[in-house]
Amino acid sequence: MSFKDNIRKVTPYVAGEQPKVEGKIIKLNTNENPYPPAPGVRKLMDEMRLSDLRLYPNTFAEPLRKELAARYDLKNENIFVGVGSDDVLAMAFLTFFAGEKPVLFPDITYSFYDVWAELFKIPYKRIPLDEEFKININDYKEPNGGIVIANPNAPTGICEPLSFIEEMLKNNPDSLVIVDEAYIDFGGESAVSLLSKYENLLVVQTFSKSRSMAGLRIGFAMGSTEVISAMDAVKNSYNSYTMNYPSQVLGVEAVRDEAYFKETCEKIIATRERSKKELAALGFTFPDSKTNFIFATHKTMRAEDIAAGLRKKNIFVRHFSKPRIDNYLRISIGTDEEMDTVFAVLKEVIHK
Amino acid sequence: MSFKDNIRKVTPYVAGEQPKVEGKIIKLNTNENPYPPAPGVRKLMDEMRLSDLRLYPNTFAEPLRKELAARYDLKNENIFVGVGSDDVLAMAFLTFFAGEKPVLFPDITYSFYDVWAELFKIPYKRIPLDEEFKININDYKEPNGGIVIANPNAPTGICEPLSFIEEMLKNNPDSLVIVDEAYIDFGGESAVSLLSKYENLLVVQTFSKSRSMAGLRIGFAMGSTEVISAMDAVKNSYNSYTMNYPSQVLGVEAVRDEAYFKETCEKIIATRERSKKELAALGFTFPDSKTNFIFATHKTMRAEDIAAGLRKKNIFVRHFSKPRIDNYLRISIGTDEEMDTVFAVLKEVIHK
Repeated sequence: MSFKDNIRKVTPYVAGEQPKVEGKIIKLNTNENPYPPAPGVRKLMDEMRLSDLRLYPNTFAEPLRKELAARYDLKNENIFVGVGSDDVLAMAFLTFFAGEKPVLFPDITYSFYDVWAELFKIPYKRIPLDEEFKININDYKEPNGGIVIANPNAPTGICEPLSFIEEMLKNNPDSLVIVDEAYIDFGGESAVSLLSKYENLLVVQTFSKSRSMAGLRIGFAMGSTEVISAMDAVKNSYNSYTMNYPSQVLGVEAVRDEAYFKETCEKIIATRERSKKELAALGFTFPDSKTNFIFATHKTMRAEDIAAGLRKKNIFVRHFSKPRIDNYLRISIGTDEEMDTVFAVLKEVIHK
Repeated sequence: MSFKDNIRKVTPYVAGEQPKVEGKIIKLNTNENPYPPAPGVRKLMDEMRLSDLRLYPNTFAEPLRKELAARYDLKNENIFVGVGSDDVLAMAFLTFFAGEKPVLFPDITYSFYDVWAELFKIPYKRIPLDEEFKININDYKEPNGGIVIANPNAPTGICEPLSFIEEMLKNNPDSLVIVDEAYIDFGGESAVSLLSKYENLLVVQTFSKSRSMAGLRIGFAMGSTEVISAMDAVKNSYNSYTMNYPSQVLGVEAVRDEAYFKETCEKIIATRERSKKELAALGFTFPDSKTNFIFATHKTMRAEDIAAGLRKKNIFVRHFSKPRIDNYLRISIGTDEEMDTVFAVLKEVIHK
């Protein structure tokens, strides 16, 4: 008997590589936004006072909750904030999935879901997507302890319409349904409008993609007062002060500057649509993406070999060594200039 | 059956109040440092580039790990960092206490320990401190799944010598022993020097007290390579990116500027020692504190009434409505000027 016998066994999530190479790189492997945050953030950074850092930050991140509530036409008590949507989702798993029945989610989806379920010993069942990587809603009619749907789904990029989410909620009135909308701002329709009708809905979003703030670690959830207060209680059983002072101050601007937010989202969407044409011309096929990435497979060349070829030119894309998707690449949408370089390099890599 | 039946039942930790009153207040209820962080932090704030915020921060908070490793004469792989020591301690509970035997800690100690144990369904046993609020080391010889000792203890302020911690480690070679040193820099001796001899030791510290950075949420743990890598694995099963970019950048300066750190700690110690004399003269008794607070009870007047009297003058101290300690106040050490005001108001409050 040793203390080592009491250590929790886990298989951690593996995040996209953070390249440590000299010189210029094109980083399209973790779906970051190619554009900087709203310009007003600079002024807020300058105005932060050194002496404010000595104090504990607001426990409820009130400035940020208030701004988000106004933006989504909700009340402060309908907003939960956390250290990235990973923290928010993990807290939601811990809060809402304490039952005995399995929580359901697709086999191909954000690969943290099963990691959290394992960590918190939550029973779960992965339901295979169909051959076109689509969710079959009829698969989610069996008894369950909750449902988690990424919409748009990752890494496929496929977005379901609002009617699909509503049907899922109607079919499962006794289950909490988490809709993970990390990529919703790139062309999908948010389920936030369904909150007034369905108490069993939790919508999760992040500042890491469309709001260009991955470095600040801000995620949030929207739900009924009762659902959010249950999350707050669990959060306050874990850590009273999760979101630090700089994130609370600077995050507000990402919500307030709606014009900049829309402009960058539209730029990324335009680049994505152009990228679809370029990739198709190069012999790639892919599900139709409504995200800031394209999940592509090539008709002749292996995904792994393409990734290796790109990497030689300091271009990083994501390859998952997982069943069903190991011949796909997830390519984040960069700036137009970055994507032009990618297409040029792909032409070399693929034709040689 | 409703989704509400699957919600985890918790009794959250209650943090000290964050006063929302107009005008000048003296906030001595959450043990914050009365002095600002190291002056060099300002320059680092100014140098942060807006565009860096769009990228995910370093998963392992490498700049900070490196600086801490150098400071404590350890290697990077002996350092774990998290979002405040609450995050670090919660991760340690989740990582190391997955066994069946109860984890032991005192009945009067940091009140998050039992909250985490409940949250993660960890068996635990609270062992009463003796009548003078001291830990009896012989109480920690029964079979256990781990031991957690705050040293100095909170809210008592009592610090045990290094020999006590070493004896605890020797008595429990098969248990992981967490030593929570949130207040160690105010006059205690850290157990970090025991790490080379005891693999079952985890030392946890924070930037929120002695390093004046409660607003940035930085805590860290020091342990053997195996112990730290187990924590990293659990952390990476929870959230890949916990510590945000500003904390990674600014936190470094709090470690690098050792002269400023020592100077502020010594100022606080000097004010504390003077405060002990003043409080004794006012009729208070208290265990001898080696922290940045004094845990005091008055010979005639009820703690709750004293707290209410102080509050009328916008002075906030902490009162716990808990068995054994409900006639005590935990008074954080402020600046000399703030403490002089407190003593003057106490004279009025107590003599009336």
